[in-house]
Amino acid sequence: MNIDALKQQLKGKLIVSCQTFEGEPIHGEGIVVKMAQCAKWADAAGIRANEPKNVKDIKAAVGLPVIGIWKVVQPGCDVYITPTMDAVDALVEAGSDIVALDATDRISHDGRKAYELIADIKKKYPDLPIMADISTVDEGINAEAWGADFIGTTLSGYTKHSVKTDGPNFELVEKLCERFADKVIAEGKINCPQEAVRCIQLGALCVVVGGAITRPHLTAQRFVSLLKEEEKNG
Amino acid sequence: MNIDALKQQLKGKLIVSCQTFEGEPIHGEGIVVKMAQCAKWADAAGIRANEPKNVKDIKAAVGLPVIGIWKVVQPGCDVYITPTMDAVDALVEAGSDIVALDATDRISHDGRKAYELIADIKKKYPDLPIMADISTVDEGINAEAWGADFIGTTLSGYTKHSVKTDGPNFELVEKLCERFADKVIAEGKINCPQEAVRCIQLGALCVVVGGAITRPHLTAQRFVSLLKEEEKNG
Repeated sequence: MNIDALKQQLKGKLIVSCQTFEGEPIHGEGIVVKMAQCAKWADAAGIRANEPKNVKDIKAAVGLPVIGIWKVVQPGCDVYITPTMDAVDALVEAGSDIVALDATDRISHDGRKAYELIADIKKKYPDLPIMADISTVDEGINAEAWGADFIGTTLSGYTKHSVKTDGPNFELVEKLCERFADKVIAEGKINCPQEAVRCIQLGALCVVVGGAITRPHLTAQRFVSLLKEEEKNG
Repeated sequence: MNIDALKQQLKGKLIVSCQTFEGEPIHGEGIVVKMAQCAKWADAAGIRANEPKNVKDIKAAVGLPVIGIWKVVQPGCDVYITPTMDAVDALVEAGSDIVALDATDRISHDGRKAYELIADIKKKYPDLPIMADISTVDEGINAEAWGADFIGTTLSGYTKHSVKTDGPNFELVEKLCERFADKVIAEGKINCPQEAVRCIQLGALCVVVGGAITRPHLTAQRFVSLLKEEEKNG
């Protein structure tokens, strides 16, 4: 799908991030596909998925556009979202409609800045839509200059140099939207429908929601935390 | 466990309703147990579960107190939450710590009013804690008079004669709490932690949250609905 058609399809819509990890209580065979089917059932416009196998399975099961990532953790390195060309190759092979990667200012697996991989991808796959996961306005501006088609606020609060917010970083969304009208994907800590709508009102192309929809243990924890706070103060 | 100990354990806490049904995208072998494990992980105080087999599996997996129900649908009858003594027997056998049933003013499988089953249960199982799922203040008062230990607002908005609310029926919670200080379990349409806390502030013993935690398709739908509304009006 070309980028304009993709943008048209995603505009104002919900993308559901469907991920589980070893050790999580909801983890298990076929769970991410079930999550994606839930998203499809609810008329979401797309899926964000981790690992080539899951991208492939989800594409086959629901047929929605998929933002593929591959979390590859390497000791001593903070960059883990699609950090290498090997990871990109596998995500393309699996059928990702968009590949997202860490495009922060941090040092990646190969000793270069994470965002430098964008140029390599654009050279190898000129037509592949790229989503740059960033944590600050400057990183967003930089990633766009390096050729990213979409700028995602995914990593706000998850790098040492970015602002920690309890909810979505609306200021970051707003500032990026002032520059790149139709390239901003709001992602990160969007916990309720009202917050998603706020991101769209600020100009975001679309929103990615993960935990609040697909990670029941984290949602339950938010309920328990607030109830405990009430017990202490109430 | 006796009722006072149970109340102590549940006071101010979260109970997670872990249910899936044939045809739902999240349905599948072992899913309700995974949901219960998510609740346990998050430090929830109890589980509400449907069907004896699930009660048993969940008790074995997480060891938390379980409110057992058995949804038995019969054509032409609106009452389906634990409508018969057979259902109660099976839930007791499965290890339910509390058995919940429809205690509304409606006609049940046997032609009697739904709440009349409370007296039969109390006779057969004098020590079994009973939760009466009701839809109005009058039904709550009545169910308590018939011997229910807990009054749940579960069915508010789901009977023809009760008020339809978008969120939790706070007024019902409040009015019941004025009468039965430590017997009210707030359940139904509690979609965010703030709503759960509000119920506790109104005097509820504890809260049951289901869909907002364990039904990703419904949560995704709430996001999609509000985004569509924004698209239409924005």
